[in-house]
Amino acid sequence: MRTDFEFFSTKNVVFGNGSIQKLPQILDRYQAENVLIVTDQGIKGAGILKKITHLLEGSGLNISVYDKTLPEPPLSTAVECYNFAKDQQATDVIIGLGGGSSIDLSKVMALLIKYGGNPQDYVGENLVPGPIAPLIAIPTTAGTGSEVTSVAVLNDTDNKIKAGVSDNNLRPAVALLDPELTVNLPPYVTACSGIDALAHAIEAFTAKDFRYIEAEGELLFQGSNPISDSLALEAIRLITNNLTLVVQQGSNLEARGNMLIGSLLAGMAFSNAGTAAAHALAYPIGGLCESPHGELTGLLLPHVMEYNVGVVPEKLEKISEAFHVDNKDLDTKEAANFAIEEVFNLVEQIGLPTKLSHIGVKEEDLSIIAEKALPIERLIRNNPRVPTKDTILELLKKAY
Amino acid sequence: MRTDFEFFSTKNVVFGNGSIQKLPQILDRYQAENVLIVTDQGIKGAGILKKITHLLEGSGLNISVYDKTLPEPPLSTAVECYNFAKDQQATDVIIGLGGGSSIDLSKVMALLIKYGGNPQDYVGENLVPGPIAPLIAIPTTAGTGSEVTSVAVLNDTDNKIKAGVSDNNLRPAVALLDPELTVNLPPYVTACSGIDALAHAIEAFTAKDFRYIEAEGELLFQGSNPISDSLALEAIRLITNNLTLVVQQGSNLEARGNMLIGSLLAGMAFSNAGTAAAHALAYPIGGLCESPHGELTGLLLPHVMEYNVGVVPEKLEKISEAFHVDNKDLDTKEAANFAIEEVFNLVEQIGLPTKLSHIGVKEEDLSIIAEKALPIERLIRNNPRVPTKDTILELLKKAY
Repeated sequence: MRTDFEFFSTKNVVFGNGSIQKLPQILDRYQAENVLIVTDQGIKGAGILKKITHLLEGSGLNISVYDKTLPEPPLSTAVECYNFAKDQQATDVIIGLGGGSSIDLSKVMALLIKYGGNPQDYVGENLVPGPIAPLIAIPTTAGTGSEVTSVAVLNDTDNKIKAGVSDNNLRPAVALLDPELTVNLPPYVTACSGIDALAHAIEAFTAKDFRYIEAEGELLFQGSNPISDSLALEAIRLITNNLTLVVQQGSNLEARGNMLIGSLLAGMAFSNAGTAAAHALAYPIGGLCESPHGELTGLLLPHVMEYNVGVVPEKLEKISEAFHVDNKDLDTKEAANFAIEEVFNLVEQIGLPTKLSHIGVKEEDLSIIAEKALPIERLIRNNPRVPTKDTILELLKKAY
Repeated sequence: MRTDFEFFSTKNVVFGNGSIQKLPQILDRYQAENVLIVTDQGIKGAGILKKITHLLEGSGLNISVYDKTLPEPPLSTAVECYNFAKDQQATDVIIGLGGGSSIDLSKVMALLIKYGGNPQDYVGENLVPGPIAPLIAIPTTAGTGSEVTSVAVLNDTDNKIKAGVSDNNLRPAVALLDPELTVNLPPYVTACSGIDALAHAIEAFTAKDFRYIEAEGELLFQGSNPISDSLALEAIRLITNNLTLVVQQGSNLEARGNMLIGSLLAGMAFSNAGTAAAHALAYPIGGLCESPHGELTGLLLPHVMEYNVGVVPEKLEKISEAFHVDNKDLDTKEAANFAIEEVFNLVEQIGLPTKLSHIGVKEEDLSIIAEKALPIERLIRNNPRVPTKDTILELLKKAY
């Protein structure tokens, strides 16, 4: 039995409609002179980048912009961005502006600018020597929670595998959340990223208790604990109560704000507690089809909840309360099943696929998916019910 | 209407029975060489200091110990401690070990060691120039939450007023919580500190929404927001479910652990959201009698809840759920009243005074108390119901 856990957090969150106006003030706190903005063409096209560079005009700051971030950025993009940064005056503050990809890339920049070397040098867990350069993360989607997490995912395109840099030093110094920056996000992207945030929150909340995680040494994903639980449950409440609304009414600022806080809290929870089987299964499936990550975790999530219900019925019962179910007359098991059904409904309501067969996965692939997911130890060991090949295959067949 | 809030947090929490064993490893992360431990005679007498110095023997670290912290430390103690520190080899990491007083003093040391000057130079809000020296806070009581807060309270004994240093830079780098260090805390101290933590949590949870706080500029205490709310509510759950138990069974390690996490979460919540009328009233009453701070906030807390019930009934209803009240058949108002009654009962159950007349306050003082509390703007403006002299006096009469 493990006897202790550690909880790591971003030191500073800024939230509010129009809070982007605070950016000059925040840069001032870090005595910024030369600022690198890491973003992508979508953000540039949407006019969000311009909004920010406009805001910093006349500030006397020297601003450089790298706007070529690709989705799930290849290692080569990180090298290119770092070379670009080296050609500028010595960067002292980095801004990551965009979805998870831009923010992940900005984390790697804040790391390389401080310690040099190649991105590959840091792929793995706990390989960052110390605090990274000051990084301000400004998410434009509500989903990854990257603005507060310890993880940056790059793509090793040569070897066709994910190259993750995971270290508590990688958390941004500031997470700046302005709902106004997210109002133009299209419904489909809103749905995919929002359901991924729910998957983070539910998997963190139902993760195995930290005391019973079977692994040695310092773990980044440590299992659930009272701090991550309280954050995850609030995230579940916020996301379940706002996701359908925000998919239907993109300009609803209050709902957008609730989604941003929900995904932030989910990020704080899962980056300490970890995610589990739904995320472990999403990785190999992602290699077999074109679906974005959130579509996969959302599709899998209620099936994984169903898979776990016998082990964590009380936790699922608590989740049912987030759906405002009148569970007065239900026993724990019934309320837990209700929560699962509500997540099934939610995925359908926001228009995302509910079957693996609908997204191009072939039935003969299911066995390979199970085989590839089971060795993802850092996620699989967090799952409250111990996954085996047979039971996971059964889960996948239900999801097919 | 204010449109944004900021949330600040300690970056690293370590929790667990025996987690004090991790101290050498944590010191290592900060490349510590010369360590200053700030503590008091009680901690020394209880053998806790020895446990820690023993643990660091053979580590090659140069350890100095200041063990003369006084309760509510006078400014002169801070000067003495700083002079002691200056006589040692240049301190690079500070450990605050003890209750709120030792940890508060250690914060001021981490500030002075980094920036020099006198403690008086920093009394006020937002006067700390930047990050303080690395500080590891190890609480031996579950109450103040000082291990994660932005505040250090000293005593200006010449002018007979509190001299608070408040700044987000003052948060310790690490909060190390080992329930085993708290098992020998006497029932009375356990009760006073535990009910104070509940007062932090409830006042933060019911504080005015951040949008409606009427004040200009950057505020340390910003009113309630979704992040502080989720932390505060979990704190309320943990404290209400463990406080009586821990007062009765001091060696119950699980309950001690829950109280430590509860007071930590309460500290995270109130150091962002702020406390309100119960704390504002406790200050002038503290000047009139010998009762420790927690005895006063605990006594006042249910009265302040009653005072606020008409404005925040839903929040008090949520608090009632923490008491596992079967509120299926109660409406919001009834459930809210139930929460108030439960807090009254809790104060009584843990053996603390429930009337101002029992602790030496005189009836003719009530009016002076109200007059002195109302100008404590940073707390009073957080109260959900606007306090006036007449209504506060009525509250005090009920509490008399």
